[in-house]
Amino acid sequence: MSVSRVSIVENILDANEAVAASNRTLLDSHGVFALNMMASPGAGKTSVILQTLKQLGKEFRIGVVEGDTAPVTIDSDRVMEAGAAAVQINTGGECHLDAVMLSGGLKKLPLDQLDLVIIENVGNLICPASFPLGAHASVLIASTPEGDDKPYKYPNMYRGVDVLIINKIDLLPYLNFNMDYFRRGVEMLNPNLVTFPLSSVTGEGVSQWCDWLRAKINSAQR
Amino acid sequence: MSVSRVSIVENILDANEAVAASNRTLLDSHGVFALNMMASPGAGKTSVILQTLKQLGKEFRIGVVEGDTAPVTIDSDRVMEAGAAAVQINTGGECHLDAVMLSGGLKKLPLDQLDLVIIENVGNLICPASFPLGAHASVLIASTPEGDDKPYKYPNMYRGVDVLIINKIDLLPYLNFNMDYFRRGVEMLNPNLVTFPLSSVTGEGVSQWCDWLRAKINSAQR
Repeated sequence: MSVSRVSIVENILDANEAVAASNRTLLDSHGVFALNMMASPGAGKTSVILQTLKQLGKEFRIGVVEGDTAPVTIDSDRVMEAGAAAVQINTGGECHLDAVMLSGGLKKLPLDQLDLVIIENVGNLICPASFPLGAHASVLIASTPEGDDKPYKYPNMYRGVDVLIINKIDLLPYLNFNMDYFRRGVEMLNPNLVTFPLSSVTGEGVSQWCDWLRAKINSAQR
Repeated sequence: MSVSRVSIVENILDANEAVAASNRTLLDSHGVFALNMMASPGAGKTSVILQTLKQLGKEFRIGVVEGDTAPVTIDSDRVMEAGAAAVQINTGGECHLDAVMLSGGLKKLPLDQLDLVIIENVGNLICPASFPLGAHASVLIASTPEGDDKPYKYPNMYRGVDVLIINKIDLLPYLNFNMDYFRRGVEMLNPNLVTFPLSSVTGEGVSQWCDWLRAKINSAQR
């Protein structure tokens, strides 16, 4: 990589940080708690969001920002059907959301009528780790069929998040997934990571995750 | 995106195309057939490669180039144990291999002693689509637990490949995966795509994939 390319990349990341900080200020001024939800394609981000809407949708007013690399509304249609305010961001082929894109998305949400904003990032285990958005917590969803070696192979993603959801635990009987090996990899990278094993199909474990989230939303409103 | 950023990106892509063409010339001069294998994290690239080595490893001399975003040798260790010549490329955090990285990898393989090179790209459904490497065929591995909506959400990847492997069909009884909906999405994007449903756990469907590959390797040597 040439010197000029390095400095362009650094400028982009610095600019992103500045806009992320202003997104955080905007969210805080409305008492809104925001989550940046990241995962590989098909790990179950939308399904976890739908379960969260089901459990917390009567207690809290929830908005969802859907990041997609293509102009499809599959996910935003599903969350709107579930009763959430939703905004779709098409990244135009980019492999992650950035703070500027989120800033545009937040402008379209009625923040003064919301308690929680869930940001569904683009399905990707690499690029989103480099672009903070200004959310209060970043959540990684791992799914058991992806295999137990993912922390070892995508360490940057595991290092940078606050919460780990281990989704699709209903499939464990049919998989060769060594939970101890997986957890050892996670602990090596991020010893204080809060972890919720759950199934967005059966609903097992979802209430523990929602209890954690409820406490966070309530403390943001204080 | 500013004009200068667009032109930098275009220059990078043009330079990649030029090196990809020289990789192809190098492979052809040795009569080596090369596959660029792409998928999301955990779709089963390494498992499919191991099944391929098992079925074709006695007939052909096979080399594997392992692309990883982190300096881990989990995959290259596994393919070397299975008897293949393997080269590990650490992309240093980048979300895809590019033609220059592959060029470096090919120099470390004994091409005059090989019939097939399998390139395992970084686990990602977005970035690798923009960087041809010079391989003769590009293979996308979808896996059933990722869900049936992936062609709709990651169209660029489905558009640009020659072969689609649908892996983990052994899990279909436990999933809500609509094969017709999935295939409709694929056909819309890439009507001539050659498709192999298989399970790298049970081995079902692997020989159809290997029959296709055998014919390609043989025609490259003619």
